Amino acid sequence: MAIVLFTDFGSSDLYVGQVKAVLQRLAPPIAVIDLLHDAPAFNVRASAHLLAAMVGSFDAGSVFLTVVDPGVGAARNALVVNADDRWYVGPDNGLLSVIGARAAKGDCWRIVWRPEQLSASFHGRDLFAPVAATLAVQSGLPKNWFEHAGELDVEFGGDDLPEIIYVDHYGNAHTGIRASGIPRDMMLAAGERQLPFARVFADAAEGAAFWYENSQGLVEIAVNCGNAAQLMGLTIGDRVAWA
Amino acid sequence: MAIVLFTDFGSSDLYVGQVKAVLQRLAPPIAVIDLLHDAPAFNVRASAHLLAAMVGSFDAGSVFLTVVDPGVGAARNALVVNADDRWYVGPDNGLLSVIGARAAKGDCWRIVWRPEQLSASFHGRDLFAPVAATLAVQSGLPKNWFEHAGELDVEFGGDDLPEIIYVDHYGNAHTGIRASGIPRDMMLAAGERQLPFARVFADAAEGAAFWYENSQGLVEIAVNCGNAAQLMGLTIGDRVAWA
Amino acid sequence: MAIVLFTDFGSSDLYVGQVKAVLQRLAPPIAVIDLLHDAPAFNVRASAHLLAAMVGSFDAGSVFLTVVDPGVGAARNALVVNADDRWYVGPDNGLLSVIGARAAKGDCWRIVWRPEQLSASFHGRDLFAPVAATLAVQSGLPKNWFEHAGELDVEFGGDDLPEIIYVDHYGNAHTGIRASGIPRDMMLAAGERQLPFARVFADAAEGAAFWYENSQGLVEIAVNCGNAAQLMGLTIGDRVAWA
Repeated sequence: MAIVLFTDFGSSDLYVGQVKAVLQRLAPPIAVIDLLHDAPAFNVRASAHLLAAMVGSFDAGSVFLTVVDPGVGAARNALVVNADDRWYVGPDNGLLSVIGARAAKGDCWRIVWRPEQLSASFHGRDLFAPVAATLAVQSGLPKNWFEHAGELDVEFGGDDLPEIIYVDHYGNAHTGIRASGIPRDMMLAAGERQLPFARVFADAAEGAAFWYENSQGLVEIAVNCGNAAQLMGLTIGDRVAWA
Repeated sequence: MAIVLFTDFGSSDLYVGQVKAVLQRLAPPIAVIDLLHDAPAFNVRASAHLLAAMVGSFDAGSVFLTVVDPGVGAARNALVVNADDRWYVGPDNGLLSVIGARAAKGDCWRIVWRPEQLSASFHGRDLFAPVAATLAVQSGLPKNWFEHAGELDVEFGGDDLPEIIYVDHYGNAHTGIRASGIPRDMMLAAGERQLPFARVFADAAEGAAFWYENSQGLVEIAVNCGNAAQLMGLTIGDRVAWA
Repeated sequence: MAIVLFTDFGSSDLYVGQVKAVLQRLAPPIAVIDLLHDAPAFNVRASAHLLAAMVGSFDAGSVFLTVVDPGVGAARNALVVNADDRWYVGPDNGLLSVIGARAAKGDCWRIVWRPEQLSASFHGRDLFAPVAATLAVQSGLPKNWFEHAGELDVEFGGDDLPEIIYVDHYGNAHTGIRASGIPRDMMLAAGERQLPFARVFADAAEGAAFWYENSQGLVEIAVNCGNAAQLMGLTIGDRVAWA
């Protein structure tokens, strides 16, 4: 069991350490795993699809602390979601909606507890971290901290998203399309090109662009020994399509 | 209790892991928290103010390993400081002077212990890490490792610093001015603009620049859904003033 | 004892967290240390020399999970190497060959175990992490997971590499030359300059370039209070020579 962090706080910035200080104080025996701190900032939809692709390998009981929250301090709710026996704590802005829509079973609560000191801009530290720590330590919900919300709003739904949702440091461009079941003879239209499938990088010629099923199960655009995003001018939000 | 790291070693570089290897060997049961590894390099004054703004939420007994040390290998001293019941280990170059000047109570020692192998350029690993680990494990000072220095020199003093001291990955520009007590109708002059106060990002129009009290209690310049530092051309060291 | 990570997965990217989730599940009591996640990507030779310079200070029994693996998914083998009582798990592409060639004693096995689910592109998570975790927990090799390979191929050998192999965030350029035994009056030719030795940064004039013995024991090119790589136009792979 672990607390898993998925945020846009920046892996080199001064925010993650403050969150971890809270977790260490309130849940010292629980392991903390940094899944991603450079989720697409200001882009809740892309982040929601990326998160949904990454949670499947985590154990039941895992507690995800998820924050991509451009509306922090305004009137959005704070949520706890249980989906397929994993817990999620984060803002009610759609970030958890892809997970919710795809879950075989789930439930949802609004967080009504508030800390003594709640900053206007850092609910990740002040609100979500104490809730995640408490969930992890008690393996459940303290009384009076939550009210049952029933169905989670599914702003973005559970369908695939035919867009670039993430670009990694190699320049590989991840889409929001799940690769399972896609025929391998399909061509993917991206930028001004049509890309064939390759199983692994080494199956493509050096410098050639292709699509493949990445290690999160998503359709990804890559170039063997090259930077696909730079070469093809791809950025988060760009549309792709099956040709 | 934890060992808290505040350095300019770079979060993606090869230095932090070497420090942690030492801490893991000498203080295996103690949690280690990466507070910041991209403190303003070569800028001890900005780093000193940033550090002072971030320590308030840590428990008594916490041990801070603090290194922004352009003069490493030259003839500066190495210090252990106790300020308001938190420990600090680092170079005697002013990095700890803002904390020292603001502390209600404090004390200061020179480190006279030296390791068998002391590199010329990496005292963070070879000197400060073993001292911090020993302090954390023994909750105090081993005999013969230190000599009492009495008052800490306060190179930079405890006053606010009306400058940009940090720019985060969102482009928000943190100043060294503590926001508590500043009237909310004050205008902040920065670059060529005069900025009004906003409580939260969502209270400002999209694209509008403003100042607010950030989650470390400092006056910070931000743009709703935008990059303030890029938009206004702000960098660390730029002066700001109340208009 | 610890599991030590040395990869090109990117410290801010979404890969390291997935590896750590596997380690946490299979080897929860073992400490994990991030030594470097920005090893020179696609450059196995530079990475091999950098790795070899960094392992000397780790305890016997340490398990290194090492991945710089442009040929992932193609027909290279997967290895476990024991060199001077430290364990290494990684691809058979030369990454471990400098360590192997320099070791006083060593041994080598091919990994024949395969996980139920093996992605084409992320053996770090699916293959190397479970092997490293198992090694760390059992302090040895499970039956049937390995077959003895005898001598490790030493693609790159154990000699020094007179090239830039790493550039850190300060702009310091690390070479693959071990500094021990190099006379301090030698001039190092790099770019279009000839650089003198300096013991520490403060011994050089501000803005002056020099070479010194860095904290990993390598010859490194630096500029006091400046960015050597930018100033001199140095990048990984550039040749250097004693003048």
